[in-house]
Amino acid sequence: MSKKIQVTVWNEFWHEQHQDNIKAVYPEGIHQVIANHLQKQPDMEVRTATLYDPEHGLPDEVIERTDVLIWWSHLKHGEVPDDLVDKMYRRVIAGMGTIFLHSSAGSKLFKRLMGTAGGHKWREAHEKERLWVLKTGHPIVDGVPEYFELPEEEMYGEYWDIPEPDELILASWFEGGEIFRSGITYTRGRGRLFYFRPGHEEYPSYYNGNVLKIIENATRWTAPLASPPDVTSGNVRSIEPIDGFVRDGRGNRVE
Amino acid sequence: MSKKIQVTVWNEFWHEQHQDNIKAVYPEGIHQVIANHLQKQPDMEVRTATLYDPEHGLPDEVIERTDVLIWWSHLKHGEVPDDLVDKMYRRVIAGMGTIFLHSSAGSKLFKRLMGTAGGHKWREAHEKERLWVLKTGHPIVDGVPEYFELPEEEMYGEYWDIPEPDELILASWFEGGEIFRSGITYTRGRGRLFYFRPGHEEYPSYYNGNVLKIIENATRWTAPLASPPDVTSGNVRSIEPIDGFVRDGRGNRVE
Amino acid sequence: MSKKIQVTVWNEFWHEQHQDNIKAVYPEGIHQVIANHLQKQPDMEVRTATLYDPEHGLPDEVIERTDVLIWWSHLKHGEVPDDLVDKMYRRVIAGMGTIFLHSSAGSKLFKRLMGTAGGHKWREAHEKERLWVLKTGHPIVDGVPEYFELPEEEMYGEYWDIPEPDELILASWFEGGEIFRSGITYTRGRGRLFYFRPGHEEYPSYYNGNVLKIIENATRWTAPLASPPDVTSGNVRSIEPIDGFVRDGRGNRVE
Amino acid sequence: MSKKIQVTVWNEFWHEQHQDNIKAVYPEGIHQVIANHLQKQPDMEVRTATLYDPEHGLPDEVIERTDVLIWWSHLKHGEVPDDLVDKMYRRVIAGMGTIFLHSSAGSKLFKRLMGTAGGHKWREAHEKERLWVLKTGHPIVDGVPEYFELPEEEMYGEYWDIPEPDELILASWFEGGEIFRSGITYTRGRGRLFYFRPGHEEYPSYYNGNVLKIIENATRWTAPLASPPDVTSGNVRSIEPIDGFVRDGRGNRVE
Repeated sequence: MSKKIQVTVWNEFWHEQHQDNIKAVYPEGIHQVIANHLQKQPDMEVRTATLYDPEHGLPDEVIERTDVLIWWSHLKHGEVPDDLVDKMYRRVIAGMGTIFLHSSAGSKLFKRLMGTAGGHKWREAHEKERLWVLKTGHPIVDGVPEYFELPEEEMYGEYWDIPEPDELILASWFEGGEIFRSGITYTRGRGRLFYFRPGHEEYPSYYNGNVLKIIENATRWTAPLASPPDVTSGNVRSIEPIDGFVRDGRGNRVE
Repeated sequence: MSKKIQVTVWNEFWHEQHQDNIKAVYPEGIHQVIANHLQKQPDMEVRTATLYDPEHGLPDEVIERTDVLIWWSHLKHGEVPDDLVDKMYRRVIAGMGTIFLHSSAGSKLFKRLMGTAGGHKWREAHEKERLWVLKTGHPIVDGVPEYFELPEEEMYGEYWDIPEPDELILASWFEGGEIFRSGITYTRGRGRLFYFRPGHEEYPSYYNGNVLKIIENATRWTAPLASPPDVTSGNVRSIEPIDGFVRDGRGNRVE
Repeated sequence: MSKKIQVTVWNEFWHEQHQDNIKAVYPEGIHQVIANHLQKQPDMEVRTATLYDPEHGLPDEVIERTDVLIWWSHLKHGEVPDDLVDKMYRRVIAGMGTIFLHSSAGSKLFKRLMGTAGGHKWREAHEKERLWVLKTGHPIVDGVPEYFELPEEEMYGEYWDIPEPDELILASWFEGGEIFRSGITYTRGRGRLFYFRPGHEEYPSYYNGNVLKIIENATRWTAPLASPPDVTSGNVRSIEPIDGFVRDGRGNRVE
Repeated sequence: MSKKIQVTVWNEFWHEQHQDNIKAVYPEGIHQVIANHLQKQPDMEVRTATLYDPEHGLPDEVIERTDVLIWWSHLKHGEVPDDLVDKMYRRVIAGMGTIFLHSSAGSKLFKRLMGTAGGHKWREAHEKERLWVLKTGHPIVDGVPEYFELPEEEMYGEYWDIPEPDELILASWFEGGEIFRSGITYTRGRGRLFYFRPGHEEYPSYYNGNVLKIIENATRWTAPLASPPDVTSGNVRSIEPIDGFVRDGRGNRVE
């Protein structure tokens, strides 16, 4: 446990640079607010990256050493190159943890990992969101109350076309009448994944202590194993004898 | 329930036409053996289709009227055109049931629906497979004993890189020492999906009564709802008042 | 499929006989309103039973021939005798379907099947409930819209101390700010179970078409298999040779 | 995280005191072998307790301060008093982690937490068991290979009558032809639970490095949260106005 978790917080970083009302909320970008919190954790080493950095902030060596990738994107999903998505995808399958925030449900990587179309309802009406904990023994909600409120948020509403989550940890009540599965986990390959709904760019949700605590907990929860099982795939020799003899992958006797 | 389930059994149909030992087992093709069984069911109307049929046997009107698509492919996954995969994918999300057999775990459609790399072990050594029922109350195993054996099969072995199944209904013991999750379900959109492991082309597994019974049951289980919930996606008006007024999807008061 | 599903609708039937405001809503009892709907289904044969019937309406022969037991209880959970609970429990494990309605979450049978304490929030404040469908391909919501409303209901709120459901099919939004997992399934032994939240005795929820449709669908969904796998338990002989010989359950060679 | 996990390893401790062949394998008892390994972990503080200790080794203050209870019982399930089971049950719901080993699936506490009858097959024939990892990204299998073998074990075989596990982490292949879900998790209340199959008293399975590593990992995985959500149950005031006013749990306007 002495090795620190290598965290990369990636942000599209378009809204904060081009829209004054967003810049007012997140002058250094959403990524920086999240990174500021995680950098205080003694077990984490945090870097940030954005769409507008060279190689989108994700050259191979950064992808390779990232234990947990936190992702925020919205308008510019399409500008993330397919080959970069391929690289990240392979790292997820190999064990990299991922935390997808808010509109990142529409990102290429999330959609590829889900295999569903992903539609849901949404509304931008400054409405109240209340997040309820549905798994009170889960590490991702350690230190969080049984519910907490965000006074203004964008609404996301069911039905959300996703695969059945491995775990449903938080769900939201919205003022306008909808509900949403707001904190869910999946496993893909060895990679552990957490989706967390809040975080429309107009609102200061990423300054909320409970939101930050959940992202912090999820970073630890999605972090890769120190020494995961080595997996063999493809054509293999038998372990036990078959019809009297150990056999190779084509059925031939191995003397 | 008066409307019959419209079933399409699709087969790559290469092995049976090009390899004498396979032709000897399935002279009319794997698809025909499965179709022969399903055609006896009074609640099913069955057609077959293969890679070598015009439009691969899947013109738009066939895809549209198919309730349940049964799929077998192996060597020729890559020859199924991407736009055909797109069409089938959209039908799955809209509610078409799918049954993926054996090596079809490597098909483009299955991989897209899973979102994982899908590797597993395999061996062709004429070994015994024993399938155990793990959910004794599930309709897919109605009429099936607690276990049954296939005297010779190809082995598929764990670890299999798939998303956590919604349900694990059958698992296999192999003579050579491995195990496998052999009967599993998923939901993608409204579509219900069953993967079933047995069925290497060299062996007469599709003549086995338990194998056929499971495919028959799974056809009913994956069949679409008569009248599924209509789902609204995208930008929506509020149902309840927000800050005193019903609002449209951008937050404006709706008089 | 020609055999009709044998349904028993059981009701505590205290409120409707002792409280005028409840009698006004359900003059013949909640059980009768549900039975009236199910009796119209050509594939169901329906009887009713109440706490105040001889043997509580559940003599052995009724329990034995019941395929699906629908249960409503509230104030009188404790008056259901333990040996009757034992009998019902054994029938569930053997395959009888169960539908637990509303306050029946507090019944002896439900608690025994869950293994948790079961606490949740509640409030009687004539508030609006909106039920959202979370699994749009599930047979239990066939013919139901993506959401529906009950204008006045008792509120049940999270956190609800239950085991992780096998399936979460519906969840509720409440006017007062809470949410609840309102339509959930479990399997216990061979028995399939559906819990459905609505139905406080003061309100006409069981006359609602969607509520009735869901109970009707769940009756079919929880019905036992025609021919479930026969399961062997206890000390068994080996199927394969162990150290060269088939062995009995104590390791002795079987000739 | 500086507080050590308080572990109590409980053992029936009858076989090791009354049967010479078992005493030869575990002269100080199964509990001591497990405790010896856990005591080497810098983050754990370990005590042991047995059926034959005063108050069965579990006076109230021990139960109260136990974070994770590891349990082995077999012949003497019935001698654990019901009121002790009640106390442990309440601690589980409140968050105590539990690890149930081998025949402890028949213990009063496990059965109460499951709500099922629990039957399965078994055989004592000195046969080989091979445990396969099915979730390669799960912390419980950190440091464990993709499979490992126990040269001689008692067989447990499916169908095992348990609720659907939250997670299926390991499954066993047995020489005699059966399979078993050998490493599974559940949540009950706030309490996280791991069942782990190996460990018949005749065999030295608890000296196996992989078995010990899994128990060690599971101890960390089942340990309670530092600060779990505080949950309110029962009759509650509304959070939002209902029909214009915040209401108490009976619907009355609050000032």
